[in-house]
Amino acid sequence: MALVTTNHLPLLSTSTTKTILQPRSRIRATTETPIQPQRPNFMINIPNIISNLLHIGMVGNSFPGNLFIQDSYNRTTPAASPKENISSLQDELHGKSNWSNLLNPLHPWLRHELIKYGEFAQATYDGFDYNQFSNYHGSALYNKNRLFDKLGLTSSGYNITKYIYAMSNIELPRWIEHSLHANTWSKDSNWMGFVAVSDDTESRRIGCRDIVVAWRGTVTTTEWFENAHLKLESINDVDKEEGDAKVEHGFLSVYKSKSETTRYNKSSASEQVITEIKRLVAHYRSKGEQVRLTITGHSLGGALALLNAHEAASTIADLPVSVITFAGPRVGNDAFGDELSNLNVKVLRVVVKQDVVPKLPGVLLNEGLEKLEGIIGELQWVYKHVGMELRLDVNSSPYLKHHELDLAGFHGLETYLHLVDGYVSEEDEFRRNAKRDVALVNKYGGMLLEELRVPESWYQLENKGMVRNAYGQWVMRDREPEDIPSPCRDCRPSAIHESL
Amino acid sequence: MALVTTNHLPLLSTSTTKTILQPRSRIRATTETPIQPQRPNFMINIPNIISNLLHIGMVGNSFPGNLFIQDSYNRTTPAASPKENISSLQDELHGKSNWSNLLNPLHPWLRHELIKYGEFAQATYDGFDYNQFSNYHGSALYNKNRLFDKLGLTSSGYNITKYIYAMSNIELPRWIEHSLHANTWSKDSNWMGFVAVSDDTESRRIGCRDIVVAWRGTVTTTEWFENAHLKLESINDVDKEEGDAKVEHGFLSVYKSKSETTRYNKSSASEQVITEIKRLVAHYRSKGEQVRLTITGHSLGGALALLNAHEAASTIADLPVSVITFAGPRVGNDAFGDELSNLNVKVLRVVVKQDVVPKLPGVLLNEGLEKLEGIIGELQWVYKHVGMELRLDVNSSPYLKHHELDLAGFHGLETYLHLVDGYVSEEDEFRRNAKRDVALVNKYGGMLLEELRVPESWYQLENKGMVRNAYGQWVMRDREPEDIPSPCRDCRPSAIHESL
Repeated sequence: MALVTTNHLPLLSTSTTKTILQPRSRIRATTETPIQPQRPNFMINIPNIISNLLHIGMVGNSFPGNLFIQDSYNRTTPAASPKENISSLQDELHGKSNWSNLLNPLHPWLRHELIKYGEFAQATYDGFDYNQFSNYHGSALYNKNRLFDKLGLTSSGYNITKYIYAMSNIELPRWIEHSLHANTWSKDSNWMGFVAVSDDTESRRIGCRDIVVAWRGTVTTTEWFENAHLKLESINDVDKEEGDAKVEHGFLSVYKSKSETTRYNKSSASEQVITEIKRLVAHYRSKGEQVRLTITGHSLGGALALLNAHEAASTIADLPVSVITFAGPRVGNDAFGDELSNLNVKVLRVVVKQDVVPKLPGVLLNEGLEKLEGIIGELQWVYKHVGMELRLDVNSSPYLKHHELDLAGFHGLETYLHLVDGYVSEEDEFRRNAKRDVALVNKYGGMLLEELRVPESWYQLENKGMVRNAYGQWVMRDREPEDIPSPCRDCRPSAIHESL
Repeated sequence: MALVTTNHLPLLSTSTTKTILQPRSRIRATTETPIQPQRPNFMINIPNIISNLLHIGMVGNSFPGNLFIQDSYNRTTPAASPKENISSLQDELHGKSNWSNLLNPLHPWLRHELIKYGEFAQATYDGFDYNQFSNYHGSALYNKNRLFDKLGLTSSGYNITKYIYAMSNIELPRWIEHSLHANTWSKDSNWMGFVAVSDDTESRRIGCRDIVVAWRGTVTTTEWFENAHLKLESINDVDKEEGDAKVEHGFLSVYKSKSETTRYNKSSASEQVITEIKRLVAHYRSKGEQVRLTITGHSLGGALALLNAHEAASTIADLPVSVITFAGPRVGNDAFGDELSNLNVKVLRVVVKQDVVPKLPGVLLNEGLEKLEGIIGELQWVYKHVGMELRLDVNSSPYLKHHELDLAGFHGLETYLHLVDGYVSEEDEFRRNAKRDVALVNKYGGMLLEELRVPESWYQLENKGMVRNAYGQWVMRDREPEDIPSPCRDCRPSAIHESL
């Protein structure tokens, strides 16, 4: 899989006027070789008013570091804990009581579930075709029946039933990866995530049939921070009264856009996902089963998850809806937050203290920051976070660099999952029996200490997908026929297997 | 093979004061996606006096471009011409008459031989372990018996008999790739090239037993242009009289350094290579065969090739010595050039008009340019090119971008080989029946037109050498036992096979 190193990062404009935060490369320890060809060399331009929001603690923790790392960095133990039956706490784990008593200290079962959903969110990145020279740039690399296996999520306990596509919008072209060339699968749409459902075994383990929706965050683009219209748009189809629930226009546009002239978005992402959720709910209820909905996403995928949750809870009766987001920005105003509460949607936001994105109003991920400097105070007031927060700290981990300013790394989902894995409580240190493979942190970045000898941004295709054909010529490898995207196959939901 | 994208490029200091030449990313056509994660984002700082040297023609040729490309970009023909018996012209092709009548127009047999030797030079890059996290960083990826096969040079007609190692020097630490960690194979030495000899079939084809020495250019480092001592050092062990042959100190240091405390350089590169050449010469002469020596290298490998040629011609009687360099800098003074002539060493320098490096005195590849601004005129006078020149032009190829300033691309050996492949004469256009795989141009850079849909810098290891072990943990792949470097195996020359 050819993957861009900074697909998690909302890249700011590279036209630098004031550079508050230095490019990562200048804060490197001197023992490092200066040239790191895989690292994006980005200049960050953030107005002063924003830098105050950062409150980044740069004081490192000094563990008896080396011994700890060598003790714990055991490459010969399985990289996952055995699965336990957690059904006795199923409602609490799904957020019924807003995860009170489960966050501090973090209940091990909740930790496991957070990583489970986080890995679904991660799959929307790992499974995305970033290769501009591929005919299927912007689609999923594999068909929905193969995706989990190919990404190493074979024993997830879930099966994907439908892929979700979202279309680009004239106002927001930056949201969508465009192939540089005539695209044989779609000019307008990108793969934005999937709907999956727990199999029988997993359903028994967790106590309920679980429908999961995982939304993909935006891929690399500097245009996140370029000029766009600043709009708060009503999320409901009613008059725009005072107190009306509003969300940032850009997110809503991705969620709702459609066009008859497209192949994959004659229906919007919203319509696709709600239709599929309703279908699954109806199916399992007809069998007498309890069903619940869990929606997850990282970064802007977290924003889409909240929009999805609002709509699902509004349109499907008696469905427990929970949202687990990682590094999500603020999405809407107070009224929007109130509506989610009234709909009984449970939201848990996993946030890294040093990560910029959760501090920002969502609109700033679309706008030029310098234009808004005067009104950011007002925006802060306008844009609110909803739900409960699990707050993580880069400095808590003895595996990560503590003295570098790495905005991409702070925001990366693999960093988040590493920190969740080690989290015990607000007071305790990173747990020593954390099992999750530490090397994963460096798939897309370089947060790991050099001593761990894991290359930065290591997750990449051999020869970027180039292979030698029968004549010895190097050509771009093509997709297996089964993985060629097709509106018919990918939009038609899987028959629900009775054997699940 | 994990390969750094700019291993051919002498990177200038990134501390920018005057930016004469803009970073490549700003001159991109607007249809291109801004983020090219694999491209090095380098700022070039070149004083005015140097920019005059560049004479870079930025006027593009407009071919009936698209049609030509589609016609010629045939991926279903073999990527090499059949080999012809060229023995009738063997002396001329080896430079006996300084290649007069063979350069303009370029004789097809000479074109074929130039690409042959260029691919040996390329093998010193492709076969180099650039991976800082590898235990064998700085060594050859494969043992000498496997290297050509693993790099796709199976039918080269040559067999490698010895690897050459050079050691780092306190004065020139930048020359050598240092592992970030305790290096189990060598702290001091780098693989610098190889000695090979033509097999019986190839010897009959070309008319003579051909000993080839291929030298590697310096790998990525910004330190090329950082401060170092400016010294011209006498190449002979005599008093430093006026008119004495002098070469740039840095090159000579790499060629001559040794230390008893090292594993791979108890003898210098010079001693290793001359010993092996003498051994092969003696062996084949004892069988009554004619022998000749051809030395090749790209960039600073070209500089080492000239030093090697000087020494070989000085110490081995009646041995025809030719040097084929690509993108080589100026190495020494007039007197040095005269000595090479007197020794009857034949030198052919392949040069791309837009490439900076051949314009520079070799010393500038080690010095900070700004320090020398006042004396560059004097240096030009001091540093001279030797031999014949084959001059190529980026704008002659309809496959390459013409309107971008890409110093790395202009200097890249794959660019050179592409242009040699298409070269007909000073007056004629790029030949339409050029067969060499165009995709190779983009192995380490991005010179190819976007329409050709070849990714930039595509030559890379899957997951940077990370693999999943039996426990599902990602770890760095280790070398096959046969490819683990060993002073005993790699320094002891191969038994010369009678069946060759």
